[in-house]
Amino acid sequence: MNGNSIGKALVFTCFGESHGALIGAIIDGCPAGLPLKEEDIQIELNKRRPGFTEISTPRREEDRVEIVSGVYKGYTTGAPICMIVRNRDVKSKPYETVMVKPRPGHADYTAKIKYGGYNDPRGGGRFSGRITAAYVMAGAIAKKLLSLIGVEVLAHTVQVGNIRVENEVSYEDIRRNVYSNPVRCAVPELAEKMMEEILRVSKEGDSVGGVVEGIALNVPVGLGEPVFDSLDSDIAKMLFNIPAVRGVEFGAGFRVASMKGSEANDQYAIRGGRVVTTTNNAGGILGGISNGMPIKVRVAFKPTPSIAKKQRTVNLEIMREEDIEIAGRHDPCIVPRAVPVVEACLAFVLADHALRSNLIPGVIKSDET
Amino acid sequence: MNGNSIGKALVFTCFGESHGALIGAIIDGCPAGLPLKEEDIQIELNKRRPGFTEISTPRREEDRVEIVSGVYKGYTTGAPICMIVRNRDVKSKPYETVMVKPRPGHADYTAKIKYGGYNDPRGGGRFSGRITAAYVMAGAIAKKLLSLIGVEVLAHTVQVGNIRVENEVSYEDIRRNVYSNPVRCAVPELAEKMMEEILRVSKEGDSVGGVVEGIALNVPVGLGEPVFDSLDSDIAKMLFNIPAVRGVEFGAGFRVASMKGSEANDQYAIRGGRVVTTTNNAGGILGGISNGMPIKVRVAFKPTPSIAKKQRTVNLEIMREEDIEIAGRHDPCIVPRAVPVVEACLAFVLADHALRSNLIPGVIKSDET
Amino acid sequence: MNGNSIGKALVFTCFGESHGALIGAIIDGCPAGLPLKEEDIQIELNKRRPGFTEISTPRREEDRVEIVSGVYKGYTTGAPICMIVRNRDVKSKPYETVMVKPRPGHADYTAKIKYGGYNDPRGGGRFSGRITAAYVMAGAIAKKLLSLIGVEVLAHTVQVGNIRVENEVSYEDIRRNVYSNPVRCAVPELAEKMMEEILRVSKEGDSVGGVVEGIALNVPVGLGEPVFDSLDSDIAKMLFNIPAVRGVEFGAGFRVASMKGSEANDQYAIRGGRVVTTTNNAGGILGGISNGMPIKVRVAFKPTPSIAKKQRTVNLEIMREEDIEIAGRHDPCIVPRAVPVVEACLAFVLADHALRSNLIPGVIKSDET
Amino acid sequence: MNGNSIGKALVFTCFGESHGALIGAIIDGCPAGLPLKEEDIQIELNKRRPGFTEISTPRREEDRVEIVSGVYKGYTTGAPICMIVRNRDVKSKPYETVMVKPRPGHADYTAKIKYGGYNDPRGGGRFSGRITAAYVMAGAIAKKLLSLIGVEVLAHTVQVGNIRVENEVSYEDIRRNVYSNPVRCAVPELAEKMMEEILRVSKEGDSVGGVVEGIALNVPVGLGEPVFDSLDSDIAKMLFNIPAVRGVEFGAGFRVASMKGSEANDQYAIRGGRVVTTTNNAGGILGGISNGMPIKVRVAFKPTPSIAKKQRTVNLEIMREEDIEIAGRHDPCIVPRAVPVVEACLAFVLADHALRSNLIPGVIKSDET
Repeated sequence: MNGNSIGKALVFTCFGESHGALIGAIIDGCPAGLPLKEEDIQIELNKRRPGFTEISTPRREEDRVEIVSGVYKGYTTGAPICMIVRNRDVKSKPYETVMVKPRPGHADYTAKIKYGGYNDPRGGGRFSGRITAAYVMAGAIAKKLLSLIGVEVLAHTVQVGNIRVENEVSYEDIRRNVYSNPVRCAVPELAEKMMEEILRVSKEGDSVGGVVEGIALNVPVGLGEPVFDSLDSDIAKMLFNIPAVRGVEFGAGFRVASMKGSEANDQYAIRGGRVVTTTNNAGGILGGISNGMPIKVRVAFKPTPSIAKKQRTVNLEIMREEDIEIAGRHDPCIVPRAVPVVEACLAFVLADHALRSNLIPGVIKSDET
Repeated sequence: MNGNSIGKALVFTCFGESHGALIGAIIDGCPAGLPLKEEDIQIELNKRRPGFTEISTPRREEDRVEIVSGVYKGYTTGAPICMIVRNRDVKSKPYETVMVKPRPGHADYTAKIKYGGYNDPRGGGRFSGRITAAYVMAGAIAKKLLSLIGVEVLAHTVQVGNIRVENEVSYEDIRRNVYSNPVRCAVPELAEKMMEEILRVSKEGDSVGGVVEGIALNVPVGLGEPVFDSLDSDIAKMLFNIPAVRGVEFGAGFRVASMKGSEANDQYAIRGGRVVTTTNNAGGILGGISNGMPIKVRVAFKPTPSIAKKQRTVNLEIMREEDIEIAGRHDPCIVPRAVPVVEACLAFVLADHALRSNLIPGVIKSDET
Repeated sequence: MNGNSIGKALVFTCFGESHGALIGAIIDGCPAGLPLKEEDIQIELNKRRPGFTEISTPRREEDRVEIVSGVYKGYTTGAPICMIVRNRDVKSKPYETVMVKPRPGHADYTAKIKYGGYNDPRGGGRFSGRITAAYVMAGAIAKKLLSLIGVEVLAHTVQVGNIRVENEVSYEDIRRNVYSNPVRCAVPELAEKMMEEILRVSKEGDSVGGVVEGIALNVPVGLGEPVFDSLDSDIAKMLFNIPAVRGVEFGAGFRVASMKGSEANDQYAIRGGRVVTTTNNAGGILGGISNGMPIKVRVAFKPTPSIAKKQRTVNLEIMREEDIEIAGRHDPCIVPRAVPVVEACLAFVLADHALRSNLIPGVIKSDET
Repeated sequence: MNGNSIGKALVFTCFGESHGALIGAIIDGCPAGLPLKEEDIQIELNKRRPGFTEISTPRREEDRVEIVSGVYKGYTTGAPICMIVRNRDVKSKPYETVMVKPRPGHADYTAKIKYGGYNDPRGGGRFSGRITAAYVMAGAIAKKLLSLIGVEVLAHTVQVGNIRVENEVSYEDIRRNVYSNPVRCAVPELAEKMMEEILRVSKEGDSVGGVVEGIALNVPVGLGEPVFDSLDSDIAKMLFNIPAVRGVEFGAGFRVASMKGSEANDQYAIRGGRVVTTTNNAGGILGGISNGMPIKVRVAFKPTPSIAKKQRTVNLEIMREEDIEIAGRHDPCIVPRAVPVVEACLAFVLADHALRSNLIPGVIKSDET
């Protein structure tokens, strides 16, 4: 069955493979009249572009976006917007064997069984992290829509291995610092340590995991549709579709388990004439609906499964256990490049819900943009 | 906009309010020929029934299910199956004020803003935990469908406050112990302690959170539809639609963040002629597709927001901060009653995906049941 | 697979069987704040109620609606609205044999094969025209929503057998006459003739078909979502889901086939400051989008398949051709009772599209109603 | 809101504009293992290619398909299949004025109002008949899927203006003759007359309408999901999404209105051990479910709205009625080029329903193809 479209008012269809011709995203349901240039998308794509620091894969992809439908004279038309990036720096040789000897931690085995061996294994094919380029393209449009209603979406690395951002970071620091260091951490000294940690495990032929926090500011009260399209459930669903995610939590997250009601409840107050809560353990969502406080969501990423170290697997042709050593080009830590992807995913869901709630008009007048 | 239906092959529509006439569930897409009696549903409903121990709300609901469509002569007909439980023990008085003074941690404020004050506030209305009775009814059918392909779904309490199940529990212990103690914990001595903890905070006029683990055994390889209907994303979405959930993690979950690839990767082996992994950090899902290992998901529940302790809120009519003390009848810990709900939600998603993957036929022949 | 829900912004889920406990409709996505009483629904239901004239089935159903969720203190809450009518005057005996000897023109054979014989055959079960009671309930809410933006929906019988309404009928005549005669025809003298025709064929133990025209007035320009949710395609889909429909055409309909472009094109003009077309061959829809002219759609209904006359069928148990004579209680012409159903279906699609186009707010303020 | 995807098990997303970069189709949900070459798609595209006879537009498009995702080593992979044709022979000049002076019978006016003037007007943009190239690409895959279960889909012109195919045509004649004459009529002498008729109206600067019949042979009993995804309603919805369609009827269609039950009912018989009906007034669908008889659907197309003759319209800038004479390149009769489009649409819906009914496996083994 299908599964490559998501969203209700704003529908995002994703297609393409890691080593195929291209990666593509279609956004259907974007209001007409939104000014949209390739540069708007490119800025976001550049944030996740590989190949530029010592901690990322040497695969060099320009990831140059082309908008091939849905935009006319610089404005969206109301028709589906198709955006593509072509794959160029493709070395498919190392992947020939993964259908026989599945790599631990990868989708090789499950994909082979599900698709009867017909799936494209090159670079992980449809299961590659590279498909998140499409998420970022979709997110770029979502961000433009959200900016119409003043919503801002941020993300930053809060953990790599055992290096953690323990204290609250200011939004200003996030805005200023995240994309100025290769690990996308808002605290420069921790960024340094995370960088070292990644290099260290990388030299061991190993990889390391981490946590990204996504934040949305100035979200109006009322986004989210109970009971099954609650805002948190839709955000969580989108985030779990980023390869390598193993956990999602909002606000106090798993810490709520050991809290009492009197601690966990966010009590109401009035600040500047507006109703606010004095804490934000809910992460900005109550009863599945945004409450006007910052939305905060944390996303756990596993270590990159492709490691140089020897591992055990099964040769599926002869059904025998064997060793495997993985070649190919990989990020020793997926987390830094996941930061703009978390941003994009969070933005997409919020834009979809803003449209469901009629907060963005069907046609955007030029003076609104 | 709408949001009260979920699923693609198996569609579950939920309706009703806490203090309205009834809570209802419609299952559309259930194959014809499945033997289905009200008793099959009742058994599951009884697991979440309130009012029977000192740690649960004194509200006494029989929760007697009626199947009002879709079943004929004891078999499903292929038509939508509508199941209802009527609300009986309703005391709506205490809820009259929540529209003016929203209770911290509840959806009172967000619902009021979203629905312009037209939402039904009685007992939380549409935002009450009581709607999970519908989830359990849906899950009961899902479980029957899954049993056709040998899949078993379990759940158990693994944390209440600071009392944690630290060691792996055998499936046999879960099957045997969970529903024989009021906290739904598989380890009798910990169950005892959890019970005490709940009573303790309850006496303080407070409440406490916890964690439930859901497990699915014997899941065939291949469930899940990349990229947006991945099995983990659909399970997470469903679970986040249980009121009070703040976090969801699979397998090693948030622990992956501090793991290395060589630790986190589940290596392949052959056991009894089958391909297995020697660890299960993935929680049974790789690349969004089930890998044949047990699916393991942990769900963090916040403490019941209704507490007797005095809290601060805002009187929305006069826009002034005020104290609030909550009357009404509530569970001091939602976790025990959430156990069958997690079971139901996990079962529902798996049954939907089993149908999407054609693993259950469109008509069930009697010798298959 | 499923198929009992329809609509995108406004979602209508239909359940129940002809001789089961009830017929039900759930409307999800109705804005909060709409005043809604059971009487609003009842008025519409009464239009299709059987048992009141010599040309309709002697089955007497009160069709008394109960709203069991989604309404509080006389207003919609934003939660799903469930409406039911219970089945009372049920005589299931005559249907026992249809699973063995399928009635020509009925779904007996196709349902049996599709559902492996598990479908409920009583009164046609899920395939009975009685399910259109649910359509009418859904349509009643849709009409209330449409009235907020001034849209009016009408329907009338324009053909029974060879008796045709050849001339254009005024909307005033439709409003005044349709529900004052049993055939629901706006032209009294033709109503008389249609009545006679129905009685004539009825006495022969036969039945007769006809055509219903649906009309929507004051539809704003811009409803309809190209390319696959075009307004005409969604209206047609909904209408083809009324049992016994065999054709749907808009405006000039099949007559366009023999027209030239210079005849068929509706040329533009200005009337009262508004852009109009001087003819309406398009039936109010251009490029899948409403153009502000009246929407006109004609729906062909086949003769009631249940006839007293002897017919040939196959005994499926012994696979032998046999005669069949049908007992039971049936309308000799389905057309009159289809009139309010066409109205309801047209209204439902328009209300769904008005919501998709943000023409109706998410919360209805009382002074708007 | 969105609307550019259709289908439930097989999902077709359509994008692109007449004079934009390309026309594209994505098929999501196609089972893995289907052999698929660009040539398979090209064969179908060639059937609707313009520019080759004196009765079609002089626009010359090669319509060379490129499969850019979802196929690997000649087989479908289970990932979304994206197919594109680039637009080449584009002359956008004549369309500059249509936003000011909308062409009668076109979507210029409705699109402008709906999209606030941001829609792409060149060549009709998203409203052009050219988007049906995407329908044909989708249909090509659908046909390959249907061939796995022996279903054959045909279409032929049965009316152009007043020239009608009155008698039943053999399937053999349809297969042999349709694509050997430019009007796609199965009866050579009528094809000749239709051709003359088209040339005649063309010389008058006018255009003419017609009717296409779609036929599906060897359809298994049981396709179609009551009540809202009935097979006829889904076919009708898809067909009404072909630009210029004004009516759709199945089997006896609008003729049922003047028939009696005893005439209209298709009586059952046994032929060659199989249950058949001795007539086919139902057009192969009963109760929304295929009954094993040929599916027959007739589709009315209006005359091409672009005509050279002078017409009246409104200058929307100065709100004054004015004359309009349309330049540009157009087919004087859309019907011949609609024939493969009707085929494609019918095939798409049947393939989607065959997948919904599990009649085509999730992975196609090579010996099945």
